[in-house]
Amino acid sequence: MSTSEKGVFLNNSWYVAASEHEIGRTPFARKVLNRPVVLYRCEDGTPVALEDRCCHRQLPLSMGEVAGDDLICGYHGLRYNSSGLCIGVPGQSAPPPGARVRSYPLLERFGWIFIWMGDPERADERLLPNWWWAAHPEWKRSDMHLIDVACNYQLINDNLLDVTHLSFVHKGSIGNAAIVDFAAEIEREDRMVRMTRWIMGRPPPPMYKAAGRFAGNVDRAQIVEFVPPCFTVNYAICKEAGSGLNDDDGRIRIDHMSLSAPTPETPSTSHYFFTFVRGYGLDDPALDHIFEDGFLDVFREDVAVLEAQQRNYDLDVEQVNIAVDAAPMAARRLVGELITAEAISAGTAASNPSTFPVRTPTESA
Amino acid sequence: MSTSEKGVFLNNSWYVAASEHEIGRTPFARKVLNRPVVLYRCEDGTPVALEDRCCHRQLPLSMGEVAGDDLICGYHGLRYNSSGLCIGVPGQSAPPPGARVRSYPLLERFGWIFIWMGDPERADERLLPNWWWAAHPEWKRSDMHLIDVACNYQLINDNLLDVTHLSFVHKGSIGNAAIVDFAAEIEREDRMVRMTRWIMGRPPPPMYKAAGRFAGNVDRAQIVEFVPPCFTVNYAICKEAGSGLNDDDGRIRIDHMSLSAPTPETPSTSHYFFTFVRGYGLDDPALDHIFEDGFLDVFREDVAVLEAQQRNYDLDVEQVNIAVDAAPMAARRLVGELITAEAISAGTAASNPSTFPVRTPTESA
Amino acid sequence: MSTSEKGVFLNNSWYVAASEHEIGRTPFARKVLNRPVVLYRCEDGTPVALEDRCCHRQLPLSMGEVAGDDLICGYHGLRYNSSGLCIGVPGQSAPPPGARVRSYPLLERFGWIFIWMGDPERADERLLPNWWWAAHPEWKRSDMHLIDVACNYQLINDNLLDVTHLSFVHKGSIGNAAIVDFAAEIEREDRMVRMTRWIMGRPPPPMYKAAGRFAGNVDRAQIVEFVPPCFTVNYAICKEAGSGLNDDDGRIRIDHMSLSAPTPETPSTSHYFFTFVRGYGLDDPALDHIFEDGFLDVFREDVAVLEAQQRNYDLDVEQVNIAVDAAPMAARRLVGELITAEAISAGTAASNPSTFPVRTPTESA
Repeated sequence: MSTSEKGVFLNNSWYVAASEHEIGRTPFARKVLNRPVVLYRCEDGTPVALEDRCCHRQLPLSMGEVAGDDLICGYHGLRYNSSGLCIGVPGQSAPPPGARVRSYPLLERFGWIFIWMGDPERADERLLPNWWWAAHPEWKRSDMHLIDVACNYQLINDNLLDVTHLSFVHKGSIGNAAIVDFAAEIEREDRMVRMTRWIMGRPPPPMYKAAGRFAGNVDRAQIVEFVPPCFTVNYAICKEAGSGLNDDDGRIRIDHMSLSAPTPETPSTSHYFFTFVRGYGLDDPALDHIFEDGFLDVFREDVAVLEAQQRNYDLDVEQVNIAVDAAPMAARRLVGELITAEAISAGTAASNPSTFPVRTPTESA
Repeated sequence: MSTSEKGVFLNNSWYVAASEHEIGRTPFARKVLNRPVVLYRCEDGTPVALEDRCCHRQLPLSMGEVAGDDLICGYHGLRYNSSGLCIGVPGQSAPPPGARVRSYPLLERFGWIFIWMGDPERADERLLPNWWWAAHPEWKRSDMHLIDVACNYQLINDNLLDVTHLSFVHKGSIGNAAIVDFAAEIEREDRMVRMTRWIMGRPPPPMYKAAGRFAGNVDRAQIVEFVPPCFTVNYAICKEAGSGLNDDDGRIRIDHMSLSAPTPETPSTSHYFFTFVRGYGLDDPALDHIFEDGFLDVFREDVAVLEAQQRNYDLDVEQVNIAVDAAPMAARRLVGELITAEAISAGTAASNPSTFPVRTPTESA
Repeated sequence: MSTSEKGVFLNNSWYVAASEHEIGRTPFARKVLNRPVVLYRCEDGTPVALEDRCCHRQLPLSMGEVAGDDLICGYHGLRYNSSGLCIGVPGQSAPPPGARVRSYPLLERFGWIFIWMGDPERADERLLPNWWWAAHPEWKRSDMHLIDVACNYQLINDNLLDVTHLSFVHKGSIGNAAIVDFAAEIEREDRMVRMTRWIMGRPPPPMYKAAGRFAGNVDRAQIVEFVPPCFTVNYAICKEAGSGLNDDDGRIRIDHMSLSAPTPETPSTSHYFFTFVRGYGLDDPALDHIFEDGFLDVFREDVAVLEAQQRNYDLDVEQVNIAVDAAPMAARRLVGELITAEAISAGTAASNPSTFPVRTPTESA
């Protein structure tokens, strides 16, 4: 079990706190990294995130009311501004010293509201994944989805980075036996793990066949890019065999991508945010059906797997690794290194915060 | 978090174990101070309380049967008298030595059955709150109410002693904004905390307006008397402004009172017993509706607040105090002192069993 | 609380894992001794039991599929043979070293599948209870029953070995007050505790009266044989008073028996397997009704008792013993000795793994 599965999270990072449409003028409660957070919008629409507890008697502020840009506790009326400072206490001339709750930096991008749970001074927009397609007119984004899953968020990272499970869990939709016949290439960057697999001249899986109306074999690519601690893009390309996967400028012609951002709720539960973006047939309702309803069903197929895994992790057993774990293992190592670095800089380094305490794929394969 | 929130209770005290109508000839199970208790009545109606476990194989005695004044275990027929002594074991001539369970002193008063959970030698009727109105013909008592609330009982004490929350939680019924404009007076006695607030010449809250059919402003008083560890009377007086709140003998003309006795079930759950008593319009069914159904709804409004507070107390955070906390803080201090004294006399004193480990209102206001 | 109630089980023993009809070609999950097990049948019908977790990423293998005699994980397709060895990993030429899960020896007997949870080298068919009647044409076996009970399995052992509770828990069916008027004889063997009680010339309990159509008094015998850790036969004989309980060869003419095998699921929950066998009126549907539906109802009456006991055992209280505990205490002693011996041979002996830490019946009666 890795450090984060034991409840040590990377604090200095963005996480998706909510879909943009979830947050309005009514206070909204969500737990992120095991901490209660209340979100609401100011009169000009700016989103605000505060600790979801009154500093007085701990009533969740999400049970209170928004007034102007402030939030008023529903028990004794303590009034907080959007920085979390208590600016009014009924029955006394001024709030007591120290009456405040934490506020969390937010960024609203790509249909999501991202929250920074660590030191506000270090909140850095450049650490956000650059998911520009989700807000670009040449691409079509599906609805923003959220599934609450009873598993640690890193099991979801693993799942997204390991596309060979498609052959088993999703064999009725986006997987088939051809996948594991082709080797994957793994690239590691400073804050990125990329996995690429080319699957050339094979039959298309059922959902791709329906979407592309392919008569024969296809060439496909699976590309997965992971940015720690929990941001994954799964790119998919599927073309008639031999027709070429690149455009005239030599760039890969991406058809479709899934954007996934599982946010840790607790060490054993996650808010699994995701959406789909496609780059062709933007006005074709048949493709809406395939790429929105169809992929949503695919993501739901993973939930039973993820939750069953989590239950067995309580056994605290050793595990072996296989060849297809190279990308998930690299991702876990990256997350582990960042958590270690954060703990060292905070003077609370754990002895071994790395990933699964077992053989690496290279050693075992 | 105070000592009692961690599960240290005052043992040498009365608590309400049940409403009188709950207990009859059928054994009745209730948990008090985290201990299982079985209650039943003897043939002459005298109530009995024993440990709710057979000393043999731990079956709850509440699953057995009353026979005469005795209680017979439903598993192997061990027979207990009303003192908890095992007086018969089927299949052998005499019970084994030491076969007995604890019995608890009881007092039946004001419609409730009070139980003494500590040393039976120290059970003292004078430590019972003197709630004589609840059984006096010039006063009318409502039904005995019980709500099981998932919070520590001291959060309920706080709630009852802090009447400024009426302006927020109960603004549709018995509260309005006028309350916090007037200062409260706090009196501390040996085993009593009293809070008094006069609210003169202001509009009546909705429920009082309906009950008194007031056309204009009113004079009101809120008086709260707390007797440790969990007995609170909330007196209410509301008269036409300028008409005087005292009778001809100079005594305050009490209209209505709530008697509250939250009994600790566990450190985080309470049996919240309460009833209402009024001193006028005894035969007026419209007042029955206001003072019984109406106040019951008011008490129910507090439940969501209390349970949400309890969930956030698991965060084990610091908290600040405000001016209106003077009475609840004094009450917690009184309870804390009694628990400390009990622990010292038992040789098990905790290092700091006092109240919230934070600034006092005097320091912070 | 005894050692096994704290979660120390006897590993080197058979336990019922399933009824024969529960296991087929679809993987079946069951928890035994707090460990997840998956069961399935090979193509020739041979049952297989493996750890219910993939050694790779811990998905329960019960979520996979049987192929031939192998089990294929539903996540990444790791293939296990019926010995638990991983024999194929999609995407690589050979499984990594050490890729295997535990397999458990099984025996299919008397309608049940027995599992050996300890050292496979020590699995010994002779340690199985010899319940031949359950598979013999001169005896009729009822359906195989299973009730999941929220109690430690030893509370079920106690219940079966202590037939005086029939007078209280089952007074409407198989018990009456006569039982405790007669002393029980206890015999201890190396791996057996036997209790025998003769009840001569008394009225029959309701269910026996209906089954035997008795007009007057009856002679009865209750014989209970316990084989550790959890195998109990309750023999019942009931004849017209004075007609003799032995056959011409001097052997007791057994009418009916219950075979019980509560399997520990966790320290506080059990899979309670049982069935009934009778030796007369094999073709009489009225007796089917009495001995199958009737006895099933009797067993269900015990569930409320057992689960309430378990809840009170969390209080961790002392308890007294009475005369009728001689047989259950002897059985607990036998189980405790075997657990101690196993711990000593494993070098993990607990200091006091024996039974209830209290007076013995001999001392107390």
